[in-house]
Amino acid sequence: MSQSPTGHEIERLIQLLARLPGLGPRSARRAALHLIKKKDALMAPLSTALAEAVDVISVCGTCGNIDTSDPCSMCIDPRRDTSTLVVVEDVSDLWALQRANVMNASYHVLGGTLSPLDGIGPDDLSIDKLVDRISAGEVKEVIIAVNATVEGQTTAHYITDQLDGIEVTVSRLAHGVPVGGELDYLDEGTLSAAMRARTRF
Amino acid sequence: MSQSPTGHEIERLIQLLARLPGLGPRSARRAALHLIKKKDALMAPLSTALAEAVDVISVCGTCGNIDTSDPCSMCIDPRRDTSTLVVVEDVSDLWALQRANVMNASYHVLGGTLSPLDGIGPDDLSIDKLVDRISAGEVKEVIIAVNATVEGQTTAHYITDQLDGIEVTVSRLAHGVPVGGELDYLDEGTLSAAMRARTRF
Repeated sequence: MSQSPTGHEIERLIQLLARLPGLGPRSARRAALHLIKKKDALMAPLSTALAEAVDVISVCGTCGNIDTSDPCSMCIDPRRDTSTLVVVEDVSDLWALQRANVMNASYHVLGGTLSPLDGIGPDDLSIDKLVDRISAGEVKEVIIAVNATVEGQTTAHYITDQLDGIEVTVSRLAHGVPVGGELDYLDEGTLSAAMRARTRF
Repeated sequence: MSQSPTGHEIERLIQLLARLPGLGPRSARRAALHLIKKKDALMAPLSTALAEAVDVISVCGTCGNIDTSDPCSMCIDPRRDTSTLVVVEDVSDLWALQRANVMNASYHVLGGTLSPLDGIGPDDLSIDKLVDRISAGEVKEVIIAVNATVEGQTTAHYITDQLDGIEVTVSRLAHGVPVGGELDYLDEGTLSAAMRARTRF
């Protein structure tokens, strides 16, 4: 591109938008144009919302959730059942379970999964803190709600080993047919697991 | 959702991001999490870039381009050939032609296409201003580079009618086989037009 048809500020905005997941260079330009056309209704409010979020957002020192307070609103909510602890890989998984509103439990965010090839070992995840929380005695059941991937299941097994000797029930999410799924399209692994519900390790 | 796992500021950010083209509610949440995790490297700079853009961006009173100056950097660029005027529907089309670097010409942004069903008539587009620019006498060729849609071609014909009586060559982009396209996959209309190059009206 020999000459840019736009000013420096627009190019910079497009470059930053292109770094969002789900937006490439082309869709970032579309997004930038959309923002420019809705300068007062969207561009200014988004700038303000981002600035406010930068100021107030923090990671909860207890569970690893992202919130505007530390401890987060879930950790200080007295209505939550603190005897059940749901362990997830990432904050996005916590949000997904919360949206589904499936369990009024406490949560613990690992921050990833064990992945030796990527150099991610137990010390890179919030596993020690998880063991400490469970050792404190209040937790009666730990539900390991990691993704059904090889890394997720490896991590689940590692955590189960770490909890050996602590008196707590360890369970995991059931494998099975997704709601709305058709058997014809499912793999054999899912099908053969589909009869089982939440399984005790 | 009975209980939100996140603070008000995060929800507000997700709602605003979801209004960008290409981002739905789910990808807006992903984008928000990505921004939160890269608070200093991406979230703060994006907020600043948006605020700066709100301040400096304006629509060029001459050609309709969006830029940080009015007249825009293209209109005041002395190296541009002002005897050729490329007419486009939208700023995004202008940017696309500029990226392709196909024509060192002047541009004119219509701001849309004629669409009676949507209530968009000639007065809603920058057509009068276009006729004025061409009537001034400097323009020798007008290239109507609108989309190859029914609305685009209707608009092209309307503009050609308006320019009747003004001594100027009016041309349009050639229809044809897209570079890299396979004949087998092209419609008959494209194929039957593919032999012709830029066509005089």
